[in-house]
Amino acid sequence: MADRPVKDLEWKTPLEVARKPSLNQIAKTGICGIMDPISPGMPPGSDTATLALLGYDALKVYSGRGALEAIGSGVEVLLSDVCFRCNFATVNEDYVVLDRRAGRIVNEDSAKLAESLQKIKLKKPLDAEILFKNTIQHRAVLNIRKHGLSTAVSDSDSEKVGEKVLDVKPLDNSSEAKLTAKIVNELIHEFHKVLKEHPVNKERVKCGLPPANMILCRGAGTVPNIKPLSQIYGISAACIGATPLVRGVCKAAGMKLIDVKGATGTPQTDFMAKAKATVQALKTHDFVFLHVKAPDVASHDGNIKQKIELIEKIDRVLGYLLDNIDVDSTYLAVTADHTTSLVTRSHEGDPVPIAITGPYIRRDDVEEFNERECAKGGLNRIKSMDLMPILMNLLGKTKKFGA
Amino acid sequence: MADRPVKDLEWKTPLEVARKPSLNQIAKTGICGIMDPISPGMPPGSDTATLALLGYDALKVYSGRGALEAIGSGVEVLLSDVCFRCNFATVNEDYVVLDRRAGRIVNEDSAKLAESLQKIKLKKPLDAEILFKNTIQHRAVLNIRKHGLSTAVSDSDSEKVGEKVLDVKPLDNSSEAKLTAKIVNELIHEFHKVLKEHPVNKERVKCGLPPANMILCRGAGTVPNIKPLSQIYGISAACIGATPLVRGVCKAAGMKLIDVKGATGTPQTDFMAKAKATVQALKTHDFVFLHVKAPDVASHDGNIKQKIELIEKIDRVLGYLLDNIDVDSTYLAVTADHTTSLVTRSHEGDPVPIAITGPYIRRDDVEEFNERECAKGGLNRIKSMDLMPILMNLLGKTKKFGA
Repeated sequence: MADRPVKDLEWKTPLEVARKPSLNQIAKTGICGIMDPISPGMPPGSDTATLALLGYDALKVYSGRGALEAIGSGVEVLLSDVCFRCNFATVNEDYVVLDRRAGRIVNEDSAKLAESLQKIKLKKPLDAEILFKNTIQHRAVLNIRKHGLSTAVSDSDSEKVGEKVLDVKPLDNSSEAKLTAKIVNELIHEFHKVLKEHPVNKERVKCGLPPANMILCRGAGTVPNIKPLSQIYGISAACIGATPLVRGVCKAAGMKLIDVKGATGTPQTDFMAKAKATVQALKTHDFVFLHVKAPDVASHDGNIKQKIELIEKIDRVLGYLLDNIDVDSTYLAVTADHTTSLVTRSHEGDPVPIAITGPYIRRDDVEEFNERECAKGGLNRIKSMDLMPILMNLLGKTKKFGA
Repeated sequence: MADRPVKDLEWKTPLEVARKPSLNQIAKTGICGIMDPISPGMPPGSDTATLALLGYDALKVYSGRGALEAIGSGVEVLLSDVCFRCNFATVNEDYVVLDRRAGRIVNEDSAKLAESLQKIKLKKPLDAEILFKNTIQHRAVLNIRKHGLSTAVSDSDSEKVGEKVLDVKPLDNSSEAKLTAKIVNELIHEFHKVLKEHPVNKERVKCGLPPANMILCRGAGTVPNIKPLSQIYGISAACIGATPLVRGVCKAAGMKLIDVKGATGTPQTDFMAKAKATVQALKTHDFVFLHVKAPDVASHDGNIKQKIELIEKIDRVLGYLLDNIDVDSTYLAVTADHTTSLVTRSHEGDPVPIAITGPYIRRDDVEEFNERECAKGGLNRIKSMDLMPILMNLLGKTKKFGA
């Protein structure tokens, strides 16, 4: 949601241009500020930014993307497993990537292909338990279970079309990294053998669609070794969000993942369904994390108009929340996980606006929720990882440090 | 440049009193804030403050003044060398210091004396490779090269006139600290033997000048083990500054040191020559660090009028920069490395003002560049070590943390 000033908006940000009475209402009745997702100037990923929003020190606990995406997709991952975020892709005979998303293959096709990949067994000493799961379209996760693996391996995905699939390489001299790289390289070849002969792909070629004959792997990761929120604060916590990576972080934090029909993690998501689910969830949980991915997607696409419209849709979500929660006994914090620039189309290191409303807040003079007005607020400049302790303290859930 | 309110200025600071249209222009068109050089209330040295401005965590990487001053003076220093900042001084027969600067000895005299000191060789086990270099006037650096040295040794310089030259003492129980202290004490005596009989000093006495018959040593240090900016951000970086200590920090950061004729690190420096060199350097470097020492000198001297005049000269430097750089493709950040109080005549722990102008900045309402107005700005309060990541992020030179 947060952005830098945009020339086409007369050097305003989308948040400054959007009509957002409910966001402004929260700013007006609350305390505002700006937050560095990780530290000033450092652009975060969605995973590290979400870890921070949930109060974790991402610089200390982050252990790669793969496992977060896997558990967010419903895959059970043990602390010793190593996971990768994967793409179904199209390559030629020389393993040159022709399409990194296999024509954005539909879920039905990728599900059938993924099923066949489960049956692959490598020979000793590379034998490992393999779990391969498709998620949305071309996206998938690979979980490798075996003692003595490492996340210190490179990606097979160069993230460029026209280049060959990369050999996965150990990134340190450990025998664990070497073993893991060997297993992944071997799997890539075995996957290719199965995929290129698969009836689904033969059918796709007949229909003029690119065959999904390659699995690209990136972001080796383990589950972060973090304490669940229930243990840190003694709360019951729930997550409403559709993005696998964000769900994965919430899962790692021990939160209940609530499935909402129509929530897709895209600009076409059902905003009001998520709003209603949040009100419901608040009846049975101390803390509900509602995540809307859409404005980030619009920023990555450089779509100014869409980003503004999506902020206005989010504003209506907040309007519904304000109307349907008891604001005398509930704290409502609204913020962004990071800045995504419409110009660079990338995550950037600028701080994000934050507003917290609810009882006993030191209300300030800020009247509008945006990057620049919130910077004048009573919270001044904090870090995302500070937000959770602030909220938990307001709820009376923090422990005294000292006597 | 930064200061505390001064009674003689009706409780304004020099920055608040000085006429400075260009500094104000940068504040007006940019985003402002205040920065703690290291942490609130902690007065930094010029070395630690410059390390922080270049993005390093000085509390972690600082390893003493000596080596930074040495490499800033063109001395080649290995990671295992131990260096000292030295003064040519005048002592009596009992080693009582009569003049800590030997009458601010001229460069020609100190150069000849330094040359003679190079030839000194200590006997085993104190034998070490000695490099002694005069820098400006009474200032010099001593580099000791030998395996097994330590920086954990005290100064021989009490920084007081009328007191005896101090014995250098080991500051811990290590054999390395004991060896280093022995070597320095032995060198001090050997230096004195050579200096007191030196023709240059005999000539000085004839002319009624104090003989430079002692070398005072302080600030034992090694080169900080830091990554160069080129490696951290992939940038080419240059330094325009005359102060050896500041140049040393920039050298340690792998920056190109640009020599400017007329730049002296004093209030008499050629301001416009530095301004022109900066514009030139920006044509071939991603990042140029322009340092002006003069207002710090005026503060140490308690010279209110001079400090204000020097700020106005700096303002003209910035006027030249604004007129001669492409502000649509360049970010310009202006700040101070630390506060130096005209009253205490010392570095103080107050935060410094900061303003950044350039494209895509979240411009704020601040209209004047000074300590108190900048505190109302959109950056709020950051640390000096945050500035570099913020600038590098604006330049698109930071890596995403996470996925």
